[in-house]
Formats: sequence, structure tokens, C-alpha cells
Amino acid sequence: MAVTSPEPEGLPASVTIWEVGPRDGLQNESGVVPAEVKIEFLHRLADAGLPVVETTSFVRPEWVPQLADAGVVLDGLRRRDGVRYPVLVPNARGLDRALDAGVSDIAVFASATETFTRRNLNRGLDEQFAMFDPVVRRAGGEGLRVRGYISMAFGDPWEGPVDVDQVVSVGKRLLDMGCDQLSIGDTIGVATPGHVETLLRTFTGAGVGVERLAVHFHDTYGQALANTYAALRVGVSTVDASAGGLGGCPYAKSATGNLATEDLVWMLEGLGIEHGVDLEALVETSVWMAGHLGRPSPSRVVKALAGQ
Amino acid sequence: MAVTSPEPEGLPASVTIWEVGPRDGLQNESGVVPAEVKIEFLHRLADAGLPVVETTSFVRPEWVPQLADAGVVLDGLRRRDGVRYPVLVPNARGLDRALDAGVSDIAVFASATETFTRRNLNRGLDEQFAMFDPVVRRAGGEGLRVRGYISMAFGDPWEGPVDVDQVVSVGKRLLDMGCDQLSIGDTIGVATPGHVETLLRTFTGAGVGVERLAVHFHDTYGQALANTYAALRVGVSTVDASAGGLGGCPYAKSATGNLATEDLVWMLEGLGIEHGVDLEALVETSVWMAGHLGRPSPSRVVKALAGQ
Repeated sequence: MAVTSPEPEGLPASVTIWEVGPRDGLQNESGVVPAEVKIEFLHRLADAGLPVVETTSFVRPEWVPQLADAGVVLDGLRRRDGVRYPVLVPNARGLDRALDAGVSDIAVFASATETFTRRNLNRGLDEQFAMFDPVVRRAGGEGLRVRGYISMAFGDPWEGPVDVDQVVSVGKRLLDMGCDQLSIGDTIGVATPGHVETLLRTFTGAGVGVERLAVHFHDTYGQALANTYAALRVGVSTVDASAGGLGGCPYAKSATGNLATEDLVWMLEGLGIEHGVDLEALVETSVWMAGHLGRPSPSRVVKALAGQ
Repeated sequence: MAVTSPEPEGLPASVTIWEVGPRDGLQNESGVVPAEVKIEFLHRLADAGLPVVETTSFVRPEWVPQLADAGVVLDGLRRRDGVRYPVLVPNARGLDRALDAGVSDIAVFASATETFTRRNLNRGLDEQFAMFDPVVRRAGGEGLRVRGYISMAFGDPWEGPVDVDQVVSVGKRLLDMGCDQLSIGDTIGVATPGHVETLLRTFTGAGVGVERLAVHFHDTYGQALANTYAALRVGVSTVDASAGGLGGCPYAKSATGNLATEDLVWMLEGLGIEHGVDLEALVETSVWMAGHLGRPSPSRVVKALAGQ
């Protein structure tokens, strides 16, 4: 019973929800879900109207055992017309596998901070570009769309608050090498709405069009939806979310994970912003997946509508 | 590690947090907490820096058994200088008891809808004013400050979306009879930020100063903090919240209750808005109260900081 307001002031008319549950969500859940469940999850999400469903990752299996079955999942996936199925690709070998699997959308996972780049990739902030550059360029040459994630874009568990100019500099380098979109990630959930607005306006002030920016918030401190609203007010129209709020973050203190897609849909519905998602089908899907994971969904909307 | 942004654009410089945990929170918890625990709760909240702590209610005990010990609690309360301890008062008899107990702040609980007024007070929308009018006038004559709650100000479980002009009309009648502040309540948690902005601007457009408006959000669908941010952008500077997110709502489908004070404090801190609350002491208090209630706090910040 969300109430539609006729007064959206500066908000986008429609939002593309970039569903990250199967990749970012399941990657950060402690349980490992069988490939056939993942495939059904992907089918259900596309059937519920999600226009982009990030599918899996070609990161080395010993790093992310939850997604070691990437090849099997992509083999079993029945692609729905009009839906995009991006795959995370860390390097040239990953790109080979993605191309072999018929993937048409990839993403690379960069970081805004020196410390996190070293911990995550075992190389420095600048060196990450040397790693991604040939991947992004070759992908572009093959006609793939490439998204660049910027993790730790607001705070870093070791460095604290992250300088906005540094984040914009990382983003511009990703765009320069051929990424068509940036997903600005609050990986540890520390951002608040004023910081979000400041960072986004620094991007647009540096000549990056708002249509190239996506936001990716975690709900560790309960701020994810307020931060999303702040981003919408700046005109951002691509928002990452995870069905049922799947996923924690291994670098934050809490098990609370991504912004729940259902909570986002509720807000968009109330704001009169088009999103294309069937909320009831999505809630059913999250309840079904919660059964496989053996824990209730942390999404408020799932709790309220499914009585969980 | 919330990041303070230097760009608050139209936000208030400071916010008064109106802590409703001991009243609205405990009233809607299924467990009944002993009076001595409530008294310690009140002391801890004031010691943590909360400037207003809504203490209890003089509603008839058979209606709200959780607060049947209002007299005992007020007798045992050691008032801290500079802190306000409002009490909910439904009628003349309640006001007598409040005056006897030395209360200097009261609140009346009105509704924005015909159906909810009938269900809650067993009288019609207009008739509620006849009930409150002598209470508010006498309280004013005695030098008390009076807050008027407007419940179901966004949606009503029976009527659906609530007309904003009807809400403003109810609010103006409460102000006319002598209330000094209105608390605009999304009792069932269905509001979204655009609706919040529309309602608040309808109030200010009708000549009600924003300094007389408080907001009261429930997190049933995860929207409470985003709605609060929308209200701050309109200039509202009094926000209701409940320590640890205490309280459900008996009229909504979910057990998810009030906006958690800790999640609000995190956002205010990040926005650079003064609030005066010691977050660490508050989290400790919520963890302690969760132990008495036998369930973990639903606050994301409590979960993250206390590892719950």
C-alpha cells in the first residue's frame, strides 16, 4: 500500500534496478547454494521483471568458493529476451571464460583505496588499472558492455573516510579505459546521504554524466535506502540491490548486507518512479531462497509481506 | 566511522531527538518489563544525552497493560536537569494523574482518519477534538507543554492512503486548541519520501511553521530513515525515534517497529547535524534492554556495533 506522490522534484522518471543477489549476495553468504538452485534463482529474478541480473563471477574458485560453479550456472541459464546477465571478470583468463560462455556484459571490480586494493588484489591502487586495462579494452573490442565497480568509495576499514577526489580520479580512469558505467560502492555501509550527494556532485562537476553513475549501498548501519534516496535526488537512475537483502560483507563487523531489492521497489513505487518489477513475485523468490539458505531474509518488506 | 559531509543544503543545524522507546516502544512489545527496569531505562537514556524521553502513558491499564505501572515509574524517576519527560494523556482523568505526578510535558494521541479514530477511541474523527480540547486547554493553563500526535497520517490499514489536506486540517485543529507541536506519524510504516515531502510542504503552505512539526516513522517496510532524511530536507528539526528500534505496531503486519534511535544518530552524525547523544552509551543501553526483552535489537547500528 505504498502511496504514490505526485511530486518527485528532480527524481528520475524510471530506475534500472541492477540485481546483484546471485553474485554479490551469494558470494557473501556463508552457505553454498547448488548450481541448479542458482539457475532457478536467476530465472525467477528475470521473470519478476528485473532488467539486469548480475549472474556470477569468474574469480578464481579458491578465492570465492561460493561461485566456483560459474561455468555450470552459465551453461544452464535460459536467457530471457531483454534481460542483461553481467558477469564479474577479474583478468584476461576470466574474460576468455566469459566470452566462451557467450556473455555480453561484464564488470571489473576496482577499489578507491590503496589499502583495500592491496588486500583484495595484492597490488597497489595504480597497479589495478594495469590489470584491468587490457581486459576492458578487449571486451570493448568484442562488443561487450563493461561496468566498473569502485569499492570502498566512502569509507575503508583500514583508512577511514575516503577522499572524494580520489574516488572521482579512479572513476575517470575506469571510464577512460572503456567502462560504460561506474557502480559507486559503499562496501562497508558507512556512508550517509550528505556524503553521497557530495561525491555524486563531485563526479558530475568533473564532467561525468549522471547517466553513467550507479550506486551500490550496503545496509550495515541502516543507511542504504536513505543514501539511495539522496542519489535519486541527484538524478542517478541505476541502483544496485540484492533480492531479499542477500549478502553480508566480509570486511564489515555486521552480517547485514546489501540494500534489499524489495525495500527499494517499495520506495520507487511510492515515489512514482518506474521500475518494472513484480514485487509479489520477487518476495516469493526471496522467501524461497531464504529456505535454501536456512535463514530469514533481512528485508523489511519481505518480513512484512511474507509474515516472516 | 560515519563520514561528516560539509554540504548539508537546507538541513537543520541541530535536531532534537524525541525518544519514544519507553512509551511507544515498550507499549508495543509483547513482553512486560518490570517498573524498576523501566526506571533504569529512563535514567540510562537521559544519561546518554537524549533531550526528551517520553516516559509512559496514563491510558487505562486494561487497554495498555504494558504501561499499567505509569504511576510507579514516575514516582521512581530521578529527573535529570534539562531533560523533558513527556507523558501520554488521553483524557481529564489522565491529566489529573499527570499533574499529581509533577509532569510538565504531556502528549495527546489524535488520528488523521475516521476509521482509526473509531477503532482506537470509539468515536468519530471530529469527536476526538471534543475529547482532547478541555485536556489541552487545562494543561496549557497549568503551564504544561502539549504535543499532539497525528497517527495514521500517511496510510490507514482500513482506508488506505490518507488525503494530505485532511491531515493538515487535523493538525491545525490541534494547534488551535493549544498544542505547541505536532508529531506526524506513519503508524503503519507505508510512507515514502515523496509523500513525506508533500505532506510537510502542505503543512508549511497552510501557515504551520516547520519548527512546530515533528516526524514519527515506523520501519515496517524499511522506509523510516529515508523518510526522515526527506523531512530533514524540508527543515524539520524534531525527530521521534526508539532506542534499539523497540516496538512493533499492532496494526501492521510486521513486528518491525519504530525508527531506531541509533540508526538516526548515525545519519545525523554523518550529516554534521548536532544531536547531543553518546552513541556508545545508547547502544549499550539497547543491548541491556534487549536482554530484558529476550530478543535482539532490530537496529542495524546496534547489530553492527555490538556484534549482535
